[in-house]
Amino acid sequence: MDLKIAVLPGDGIGPEISEQGVAVMSAVCEKFGHNVSYEYALCGASAIDAVGDPFPEKTFEICMNADAVLFSAVGDPKFDNDPTAKVRPEQGLLAMRKKLGLFANIRPIETFDCLIHKSPLKDELVRGADFICIRELTGGMYFGEKYQDNDKAYDTNAYTRPEIERILVEAYKYAGRRRKHLTVVDKANVLASSRLWRQVAKEMESKYPEIETDYMFVDNAAMRMIQDPKFFDVMVTENTFGDILTDEGSCITGSMGLLPSASTGEHTPVFEPIHGSWPQAKGLNIANPLAQILSVAMLFEYFDLTAEGKLIREAVNASLDANVRTPEIQVEGGAKYGTKEVGAWIVDYIRKA
Amino acid sequence: MDLKIAVLPGDGIGPEISEQGVAVMSAVCEKFGHNVSYEYALCGASAIDAVGDPFPEKTFEICMNADAVLFSAVGDPKFDNDPTAKVRPEQGLLAMRKKLGLFANIRPIETFDCLIHKSPLKDELVRGADFICIRELTGGMYFGEKYQDNDKAYDTNAYTRPEIERILVEAYKYAGRRRKHLTVVDKANVLASSRLWRQVAKEMESKYPEIETDYMFVDNAAMRMIQDPKFFDVMVTENTFGDILTDEGSCITGSMGLLPSASTGEHTPVFEPIHGSWPQAKGLNIANPLAQILSVAMLFEYFDLTAEGKLIREAVNASLDANVRTPEIQVEGGAKYGTKEVGAWIVDYIRKA
Ligand SMILES: CC(C)[C@H](C(=O)O)[C@@H](O)C(=O)O
Ligand SMILES: CC(C)[C@H](C(=O)O)[C@@H](O)C(=O)O
Repeated sequence: MDLKIAVLPGDGIGPEISEQGVAVMSAVCEKFGHNVSYEYALCGASAIDAVGDPFPEKTFEICMNADAVLFSAVGDPKFDNDPTAKVRPEQGLLAMRKKLGLFANIRPIETFDCLIHKSPLKDELVRGADFICIRELTGGMYFGEKYQDNDKAYDTNAYTRPEIERILVEAYKYAGRRRKHLTVVDKANVLASSRLWRQVAKEMESKYPEIETDYMFVDNAAMRMIQDPKFFDVMVTENTFGDILTDEGSCITGSMGLLPSASTGEHTPVFEPIHGSWPQAKGLNIANPLAQILSVAMLFEYFDLTAEGKLIREAVNASLDANVRTPEIQVEGGAKYGTKEVGAWIVDYIRKA
Repeated sequence: MDLKIAVLPGDGIGPEISEQGVAVMSAVCEKFGHNVSYEYALCGASAIDAVGDPFPEKTFEICMNADAVLFSAVGDPKFDNDPTAKVRPEQGLLAMRKKLGLFANIRPIETFDCLIHKSPLKDELVRGADFICIRELTGGMYFGEKYQDNDKAYDTNAYTRPEIERILVEAYKYAGRRRKHLTVVDKANVLASSRLWRQVAKEMESKYPEIETDYMFVDNAAMRMIQDPKFFDVMVTENTFGDILTDEGSCITGSMGLLPSASTGEHTPVFEPIHGSWPQAKGLNIANPLAQILSVAMLFEYFDLTAEGKLIREAVNASLDANVRTPEIQVEGGAKYGTKEVGAWIVDYIRKA
């Protein structure tokens, strides 16, 4: 297969983990005989610094011409304390989502046995938790009409039927491949937009008789995720609720530095770690590249290249088992490996496999 | 002091716990020489059944004429699976909040040493956690303009400067009495309404130099609450975020059946347990009355009757220590006390104190 990848390293530790993601991608392609080519593009704070725009037109074009985007992280502390600044790195993220039509954000919540002790939850609650949060990513309050002056402000949480249908189709697709249990999360006891979500979901239910669909209010879901994360198989929700619940879900695993995500939709899909740009660690060769590397696995799986994805997952697990780990997850007394060394170990594993 | 209390038992286990709350209230008033009188009123599903309205005008009048409302719980499964039904018990709750101008929902998140093992979080993370979530309760998407037809729907998340100012004043008041640390939670990197919140908060900061104010995005707060709940002292946020975060916060304590809340604002304040109406337990004398009883403590404290509040808290702790507990929190092999028996034990403790 020919694969044209747009690589967006972004800010902070982004370039370092990007490098390892690309190295792993190349090793896998070599092994399986795929032709891969990369085109690099600017985004985030570094794009603001370079051209004054966090998602420049040129970057958009490179993304549109690619089969997939390998994204790392954006964000710089110089913008952090001023969410009202005119140009900010996150706007690049939102522009990318909107312009690429990335309406489905797929966040697998997985635990790693050897890291479960890092979870804030009790072992018996979280061990074995394995679900997918699907967040609608191009609608709701993020993109609805906004207004702000000195005395009042509003955001509009708007959804149309087609927007709801297409994300539910996606959610049913994932549920069908997994344990066949879909939880639709909303606030239909209060919000009109949620009532439309629920109405559409209720109408679609009968088309998926093999899937068990249940409904949960968002406040309840925020609790259930902590009290009983193993309840969930696939969860789907709107943009703002999804922002909160996906992060909550990720943090219960104790392995946030290892979790990847995919954003898919109308145009080129994007694969990225869920963690941020960790500016303090920039250039120190200490950032964990595993979330980025696992996002490469998701990339392959998106194109139904499951053996490729599986090999990456196997390599990642082997590196953990061999204690080839970055400082934040290294066991006491274990050798500390850098970003590069972990990446190189995994590339080596893949080559020898 | 003369205290005129509106009692709204509501649905499910509401009447049973209400009875114990009233008994404790009476015992404390007797002990301290306060004159208390009660007027009962309908709300929730039982009010729909009786008069077709979950918060009847008559109930509103009784509340307005009282010094405080002792509320229990509303909700009935016959309305549960249909959030689109024309009349629902929760609408009574929303009507009560709006008509009484209850803009500040105060939710203390406290742990009880003897119940900490019930927390989903690891002991060392949660032991000693003690913070207050303050949720704006009469603005935002709950009450903004709504629209819904078959193909589209929207809600409006609107806030005005005075709405934000008054809840922040409240939050600073609580922070000033506590550990002097206020966390303002918003999504100012995306929402216009949040940017106004942050702008107003930044302007107010300098009026409270003794308080340390910090700002956190809601997705981050949802994680921080699990990873490091002891970070928080007082947290304040808008209505919808507050709905999610207060429930998340409560559930990390492992003692949801014990947590009370207060809703205060323009007119009569309301005191209630945070748990729901648990319809399945109705009439079984198994519901835990402690959250309701502790809401009576909050009621006294609201009127600066701190000794009264303290005595109730002491009695509740004594009942826990003596293993006089309802089934869901009883230790293995311990005798199981009913709702009434726990209430009676506490009343007795207060009388003898
Ligand atoms: C940075 C921010 C705009 C973004 C969001 O809220 O979507 C982030 O929190 C995320 O979840 O990807
Ligand atoms: C029942 C519902 C309308 C209500 C809310 O969302 O405010 C409840 O969840 C609460 O938190 O008191």
